[in-house]
Amino acid sequence: MSISPLAKVSDKASFGSNVTIGDFTVVHDNVILGDNVVVESHCVLGYPTPLSEGTPLVIGDGARIRSHSVFYEGSIFGPGLVTGHRVTVREKFKAGKNLQIGTLCDFQGHAEVGDYVRTHSNVHIGHKTVIGNCVWIFPFTVFTNDPHPPSDGHMKGVVVEDYAAIATMCCLMPGVRVGTRSLVGAHSLVTKDVEPDSVVGGVPAKKLCMASDIQLKDGSGPAYPWMRHFHRGYPKDLIDVWITEYGNR
Amino acid sequence: MSISPLAKVSDKASFGSNVTIGDFTVVHDNVILGDNVVVESHCVLGYPTPLSEGTPLVIGDGARIRSHSVFYEGSIFGPGLVTGHRVTVREKFKAGKNLQIGTLCDFQGHAEVGDYVRTHSNVHIGHKTVIGNCVWIFPFTVFTNDPHPPSDGHMKGVVVEDYAAIATMCCLMPGVRVGTRSLVGAHSLVTKDVEPDSVVGGVPAKKLCMASDIQLKDGSGPAYPWMRHFHRGYPKDLIDVWITEYGNR
Amino acid sequence: MSISPLAKVSDKASFGSNVTIGDFTVVHDNVILGDNVVVESHCVLGYPTPLSEGTPLVIGDGARIRSHSVFYEGSIFGPGLVTGHRVTVREKFKAGKNLQIGTLCDFQGHAEVGDYVRTHSNVHIGHKTVIGNCVWIFPFTVFTNDPHPPSDGHMKGVVVEDYAAIATMCCLMPGVRVGTRSLVGAHSLVTKDVEPDSVVGGVPAKKLCMASDIQLKDGSGPAYPWMRHFHRGYPKDLIDVWITEYGNR
Repeated sequence: MSISPLAKVSDKASFGSNVTIGDFTVVHDNVILGDNVVVESHCVLGYPTPLSEGTPLVIGDGARIRSHSVFYEGSIFGPGLVTGHRVTVREKFKAGKNLQIGTLCDFQGHAEVGDYVRTHSNVHIGHKTVIGNCVWIFPFTVFTNDPHPPSDGHMKGVVVEDYAAIATMCCLMPGVRVGTRSLVGAHSLVTKDVEPDSVVGGVPAKKLCMASDIQLKDGSGPAYPWMRHFHRGYPKDLIDVWITEYGNR
Repeated sequence: MSISPLAKVSDKASFGSNVTIGDFTVVHDNVILGDNVVVESHCVLGYPTPLSEGTPLVIGDGARIRSHSVFYEGSIFGPGLVTGHRVTVREKFKAGKNLQIGTLCDFQGHAEVGDYVRTHSNVHIGHKTVIGNCVWIFPFTVFTNDPHPPSDGHMKGVVVEDYAAIATMCCLMPGVRVGTRSLVGAHSLVTKDVEPDSVVGGVPAKKLCMASDIQLKDGSGPAYPWMRHFHRGYPKDLIDVWITEYGNR
Repeated sequence: MSISPLAKVSDKASFGSNVTIGDFTVVHDNVILGDNVVVESHCVLGYPTPLSEGTPLVIGDGARIRSHSVFYEGSIFGPGLVTGHRVTVREKFKAGKNLQIGTLCDFQGHAEVGDYVRTHSNVHIGHKTVIGNCVWIFPFTVFTNDPHPPSDGHMKGVVVEDYAAIATMCCLMPGVRVGTRSLVGAHSLVTKDVEPDSVVGGVPAKKLCMASDIQLKDGSGPAYPWMRHFHRGYPKDLIDVWITEYGNR
């Protein structure tokens, strides 16, 4: 256990073994941290809100939360969470294992992501978004939820299926479904569902081709599904499945 | 009065009754806070700048400023201000009552907003922007001001009239006027004036229809003007006017 | 020397004369600050990472780093650096003199910029980006690097030549080259090279005209190259060259 004398940590917070809390960080009452969690400097954990309905912030084993981040009470993260700096996650957010959140991401809560999801910097996830497993989301992409803003009781979240990749600066309209293994091109406005294994792009986004039509520049074959050639950071059992399915490059 | 012993607060700052200052927050000299203001942790208030010309930061009664926010001296806010986390507001910004500012918003100062304005996350307001009353601005929208960047002395601010709604990830070009009760669709580049009560969208934005043509999904009638069906957070006297004008759904 | 008693500063960091360190700031071991450097409150300097390969964070004379910023070890900045608030710069970033970085910028490291570069708020610079001298980059612009995300070993950085200006909310695709003295219009997706002295815009961006075709609104002649009329903040020797080349307005 290594708690900075410059941090302010509630006695009521519950810590696993070998937790580290950085300088000038505030940990509120309603927080449960697993083993080997590192919380860096200038963070706020377990920010109180009545919207949590009393549920705690739960961070699984082995997490690293980088500086200046704010996590509300009432959200739950599987093991292996890693964040960039200045991340915000509000209440009622639920994440599987090994989520990576980029610097400046803003997750509004009341949303759900699966295992091994990676969001790059400055991704905004609105209420009711549902993201599957092994999804990639690139910088400045926004998941909206209100079909006629402002409104009440009409919210529809975006759904992203497993293995999809959504490139930089996309805006996804309320209720669209992004199909498995698809690619949304950069700077797109997605106004309707994206078929599995397809590529869309533009404002509004249109189907451009099948994902398997895109070739790696080195001549080694299709760039998608990306699991064919990109294995960094995934566990061996998952990679073994991918190699069986797509071969070993 | 509740001032954290971990905060650093100038003796010269002026506080109303029942003010709360959070941990690790810095309050500089030239600050005037009203009654019942809450400033959370890790903030900087009254950041000194010669561009303020000596004028103070004035925050009206009942404000809540969330963590990691920075407010410069020389700006003034009516009562009821509420902010998200990591908000920046520079000097010479003037706001009416009940402004809500989302997480990560970046207001450059030398701009003005009316009463009951709501900006969602990560909105960027450039110098010379003028925003009316009861306006909605959604995430990642930017108000520009320089018609041929970089230049000096050619700046023209965007003007947004009362009750307009500007959706996610829009870019508004210098000097455009967004008419009252209009809707700017998501991911639009607004290069010319938007007519009152109209809907525009695209890059560049074109007129798509009248706002009243858009129907609520539940079959209960037009989605705009939004005051027909959306009342959350507004005062009774304003809602009563809306009900008289649009009926009570 | 003025080090806040509320800061946490490593004995191993090396400071020039007249350095100022603000409240609640953390300075790690592997940091070298020049003369007259001001680091404001709530910052983290020299954030440790093995990716720095042991190289220090070096900040040249006269820098001002505004509050809540994070600089990793392993990057180097010439004299005269000025930043906004909440800037992030990761390892292996190399900058010339007089760089100005706007609030909320997120520089991923492994990139290089020349002298007198100005980035406005919320600019995201990916690995392998190379930016020349006297370049302007406006808010929410993103420099990407992965032609088929996610991939490994296929990264290609964007190249921006001297005196180019890239307007608000642009997305630059991997490997594109933005030619000298060109202008990229707001909200553009740049998918191919931009010719020197040209103007492009749109999604995807197309050539619109030559930069010299754009006239200042006051009738005083072409708006580009901007060095004709915009001199604020540049040194006299550079301005003298510009006046010789373009005349003195």
